[in-house]
Amino acid sequence: MTTLFTDIGELTTNDPALEGQPLGLLHQAAMVVQAGRIAWVGPANQAPAADAAISLGGAAVVPGFVDSHTHLVFAGDRAGEFNARMSGQPYSAGGILTTVKATRAASDGELSGNLTRLAGEMTRQGTTTFEVKSGYGLTVRDEARACRIAAQATDQVTFLGAHVLPPEFAKDPAGYIDLVTGPMLQACAGQARWIDAFCDAGAFGVDEAMAVLRAGQVAGLGGRLHAAQLGPSRAVRPAIELHVASIDHCTHLTSRDIADLADSNTVATLLPGAEFSTRQPYPPARQLLDSGVTVALATDCNPGSSFTSSMPFCLALAVREMAMTPAEALWSATAGGAAALHLDDAGRLVPGAWADFVVLEAPSFVHLAYRPGVPLVRQVYRKGELT
Amino acid sequence: MTTLFTDIGELTTNDPALEGQPLGLLHQAAMVVQAGRIAWVGPANQAPAADAAISLGGAAVVPGFVDSHTHLVFAGDRAGEFNARMSGQPYSAGGILTTVKATRAASDGELSGNLTRLAGEMTRQGTTTFEVKSGYGLTVRDEARACRIAAQATDQVTFLGAHVLPPEFAKDPAGYIDLVTGPMLQACAGQARWIDAFCDAGAFGVDEAMAVLRAGQVAGLGGRLHAAQLGPSRAVRPAIELHVASIDHCTHLTSRDIADLADSNTVATLLPGAEFSTRQPYPPARQLLDSGVTVALATDCNPGSSFTSSMPFCLALAVREMAMTPAEALWSATAGGAAALHLDDAGRLVPGAWADFVVLEAPSFVHLAYRPGVPLVRQVYRKGELT
Repeated sequence: MTTLFTDIGELTTNDPALEGQPLGLLHQAAMVVQAGRIAWVGPANQAPAADAAISLGGAAVVPGFVDSHTHLVFAGDRAGEFNARMSGQPYSAGGILTTVKATRAASDGELSGNLTRLAGEMTRQGTTTFEVKSGYGLTVRDEARACRIAAQATDQVTFLGAHVLPPEFAKDPAGYIDLVTGPMLQACAGQARWIDAFCDAGAFGVDEAMAVLRAGQVAGLGGRLHAAQLGPSRAVRPAIELHVASIDHCTHLTSRDIADLADSNTVATLLPGAEFSTRQPYPPARQLLDSGVTVALATDCNPGSSFTSSMPFCLALAVREMAMTPAEALWSATAGGAAALHLDDAGRLVPGAWADFVVLEAPSFVHLAYRPGVPLVRQVYRKGELT
Repeated sequence: MTTLFTDIGELTTNDPALEGQPLGLLHQAAMVVQAGRIAWVGPANQAPAADAAISLGGAAVVPGFVDSHTHLVFAGDRAGEFNARMSGQPYSAGGILTTVKATRAASDGELSGNLTRLAGEMTRQGTTTFEVKSGYGLTVRDEARACRIAAQATDQVTFLGAHVLPPEFAKDPAGYIDLVTGPMLQACAGQARWIDAFCDAGAFGVDEAMAVLRAGQVAGLGGRLHAAQLGPSRAVRPAIELHVASIDHCTHLTSRDIADLADSNTVATLLPGAEFSTRQPYPPARQLLDSGVTVALATDCNPGSSFTSSMPFCLALAVREMAMTPAEALWSATAGGAAALHLDDAGRLVPGAWADFVVLEAPSFVHLAYRPGVPLVRQVYRKGELT
């Protein structure tokens, strides 16, 4: 069974071979999908025969967004904290403990119901692949539960036991790291693909974070790191030396950090929703791109510092606030996110990749930045099926 | 026929009598609607009997947004200009002429189809009252046509013949003002409620703008003014002396302007979508509010400088970028917009007002700022009917 999607006014393939540009744009294009994957892409008037045909009416089509950084296993909300912060109080990592308390108290059903609701919201906004972190449990039982619930929604589960120090270990941070790298990791590794640590003021130090990443790697997990969100960090180089897939936030990178990233395969994942919602300066996307670093955009969806689930919103912010071009922002929100998750069959519409794509209520992907805040997602296909 | 809307978790009435605060918030509230208007508002457990009852399941309800500044009668888009500007070129009023050319060439059906599409988009995002300006015709025939098409969609039509100088009058600006204040005004006054002028570099001077407003007032139209968008303006005080309902943009106000506004009944309408999409600094909302000026928020929806139709997006920007509290931003996007249009039965959920309201996919209005970019509008009621 093959399906031809045709009359695509503008198709973003992210195949640089097609036009010598990263987006690989085609006009008046078509795609053939078979068994959930792209079988053929090209000009509509050269499309092969297929068992069924769907006309997309001249709309623009882009790859489904790949949101490589979210925290969706939690209970409660922090609208009150947000309201207070927007009246002048700064963001601190301490607020995370409010969510830890609510999450520990919630039932499995509440947590998975909340995740399902947010995942649906993300799908309706064009996200077809997303990562989910644990990190609001901070006990062996609660972190294992978070990873298990996350794994029901995505293959991209990240164990983030090293999110913040839980209150019961306030006087024994070394004991908590022993727990995270020992029994907690053991309980979570079966469900998780990735391990992550929050290395910043109010969270964990560089040595602690690297110990966590190393232990995770021994257990077969890939590394990722939250760093340089709240201030400059000494963690970037050591994390690169551990070959982490991505360093996330990157708000306060130094020129040295940027040069180190440029010499590495590590992706810089930027989360402008967090800067928007915490009134912080934005990360240096322009310098990163101009230095040749691979940049991903993600939402950081979480109830404290960035409760947006909207990749189009983050893309519009990247253009307005970080001087990314609309093309760079789209690439980073799709192929960039896939690179940050080491996926070669997501974020691109090329033969062999999953047929995960978004039909826009617009003639061009540029409208994602040109029309900020406007819901422009007409239809979302995942593995060739309308969601 | 009366309908009870009950189980409203949080109701924003904008009735300051209810709790001594501008938003007039009620919890566990209900409303009774009769003949499209609010008949009763209060605690759910005190609600009177009604012919029918609809439970809103604990959701937050806010007044429908009042978007008091849009330019929806146009053809074409300027995604290419946006793309170029985001790569470093500044915004200038000159780009308006691109849209004038496309609009003149379009059929009535194209113009009203585009307007209907955008109005539908606005409704789905919670806008229940909107103003529409002419200003992309700039001939007697084309401006009259724009006002006629706008009047099919809204009672709040604004004649903006003085938007920019059309190319055919490039050497005769005085002749164009004679046209605007003479035959063009005559052709438009029957359809319009308001008259407006764009007073800024690249558009019209203070004396020209005031001549236009005075002529409009003689013809029975209320005045409004675009001013201080691109630089400081000498138009604020003269416009206040003409009792304009609103001065719009207000990006570059002086302290003197703010004091003059505070001493007047003129509303300051802020359009942060324009600053977002043209990478300009935001207007001084905090100083305006702290001086006691009535502030409205609107989208400025137009294909050049602000192609958002999303009031929630503008509200989130107002909080992030202009230090408005979520409560102030919601008030300005509802009651503030109504004040800018001299409407006393919109933007508030009080007995006698239209039953124009939005059921949010959220427990509190705060989520409109706390969850930027996320479509949180579950249902929109206009005159008591589900849209």
